[in-house]
Amino acid sequence: MVIGVVGLGLIGGSMAIDLKRRGFASKVLGVESEPVNAEAALRIGLCDELVSFEDCVRRSDIVVIAVPVGTAVKMLPQVLDIFSEEGNAGKIVIDTCSTKSQIVRVAHYHQMRGRFVATHPMAGTEYSGPWAAMPNLFDGRACIFANSEESDPQALRVVEELYDALNMRPIYMNADNHDVHTAYVSHISHVTSFALALTVLEKEQDEKHIFDLASGGFSSTVRLAKSSSDMWVPILTQNRDNVLRVIDTYLEKMRQFRDAIADYDESRIDELIREANRIKKIIR
Amino acid sequence: MVIGVVGLGLIGGSMAIDLKRRGFASKVLGVESEPVNAEAALRIGLCDELVSFEDCVRRSDIVVIAVPVGTAVKMLPQVLDIFSEEGNAGKIVIDTCSTKSQIVRVAHYHQMRGRFVATHPMAGTEYSGPWAAMPNLFDGRACIFANSEESDPQALRVVEELYDALNMRPIYMNADNHDVHTAYVSHISHVTSFALALTVLEKEQDEKHIFDLASGGFSSTVRLAKSSSDMWVPILTQNRDNVLRVIDTYLEKMRQFRDAIADYDESRIDELIREANRIKKIIR
Repeated sequence: MVIGVVGLGLIGGSMAIDLKRRGFASKVLGVESEPVNAEAALRIGLCDELVSFEDCVRRSDIVVIAVPVGTAVKMLPQVLDIFSEEGNAGKIVIDTCSTKSQIVRVAHYHQMRGRFVATHPMAGTEYSGPWAAMPNLFDGRACIFANSEESDPQALRVVEELYDALNMRPIYMNADNHDVHTAYVSHISHVTSFALALTVLEKEQDEKHIFDLASGGFSSTVRLAKSSSDMWVPILTQNRDNVLRVIDTYLEKMRQFRDAIADYDESRIDELIREANRIKKIIR
Repeated sequence: MVIGVVGLGLIGGSMAIDLKRRGFASKVLGVESEPVNAEAALRIGLCDELVSFEDCVRRSDIVVIAVPVGTAVKMLPQVLDIFSEEGNAGKIVIDTCSTKSQIVRVAHYHQMRGRFVATHPMAGTEYSGPWAAMPNLFDGRACIFANSEESDPQALRVVEELYDALNMRPIYMNADNHDVHTAYVSHISHVTSFALALTVLEKEQDEKHIFDLASGGFSSTVRLAKSSSDMWVPILTQNRDNVLRVIDTYLEKMRQFRDAIADYDESRIDELIREANRIKKIIR
């Protein structure tokens, strides 16, 4: 099968690597708008050929949209429009967006809606670009299929096989629910890491000290603050309402801690920490 | 050299393991007030012998206080009192507290102050108790020596050798500065993780969904929320003023994010994220 990957960054590049070496893709066509990234992707071997967006859609059996979510919602209708042309009706397009409500909405009334399968492979690192792509990134992780009842059963089956080749566990979910859940287990983590980084950077003029004293705990809490604004600005604005609701709950919890510490209220701090410790049951 | 370790948990137990197997300690005497932990420590082999607190101080060349910081500030003067007795003047005591201002203050006017070396080996995990102890925990990490000019040069030298055996990099620092810095690079990370855990736990009644959707990013950001209240309640109250100041800066940064997202202000979100990305220069 010919796989066309639009956006050869962390997600698109990593998918390309594993789909090719595991035999799911006979050929990978790549689209990359950044010239520097394009050259790197070709040199690293993420795709067999660099092509234009139109060529990619016309020549691929499955098109993978792996660009920031703001661009993805503009790109998807263009792909479906090309699918409407004669001879292209059997093609499939998937997205990999971290927000799903808006992308399913832009495709909802398109005559080719059935050929679109909305997915969110939940894997990644804080790095981006073709250099960040790696084999085995998706193994064992969850992949969300959003509003899969709107996709043609045949298209859905093929995309399930694609993610099976990536060793991902499928989870089926409504797009709006997806966006609520990811606000809690992904988007807020990024905002808190960004805010933590800003806090420390503002204070510590003498960076030597941060570097020396920062332990593993700090590094892991602040790790996501390395994430790119290209990816996160559109996620945070697309999922604005959910993210705001989570931030407000979070700010309330922070204030409870602040007040308990300000009052030297040891039993209240103890209570809050013991309650937070329940996360042990959920996170391995 | 006989090393007496008071508190055979993550820190004390891990020190005992490496000091013994690397030949710095000829014998390790252990003190553990929790009967279950005491039995486990002996079974795991963290110490050669379990003894009483008084026996430990009298029979050891170096006493390591590795208990929560609230207990440590009460225990240190008792150790120094025993050092005042005839024949004990050559002994040394160190602490491993994550807050340093209060522990150096309680010892400041003691006649045996010179025999105390205030240290903070900056290593750990989110787990606690004798089961959490492990070899090589300290290798390559930083160890703070606080107010080392108040220690006898001979005692300081011996303790430097002890931490050298643990492969730690010594950093010399004023106790008050230490507490400001650790508020930024350690204590705030724990508070933000606790608050994040509380936020998610409150919302998600259906824990299955968190488990399924939580990606590596969330796990690393919330990891510290598994930390024990026994350890963290006294740290947060002892370092109250510094921690409050950091929390307030942090809340301000969170509010900047919140406002930018609420206003769909993409250029402001972009600016905040790019600023936060500067953490890359500091955290490997």
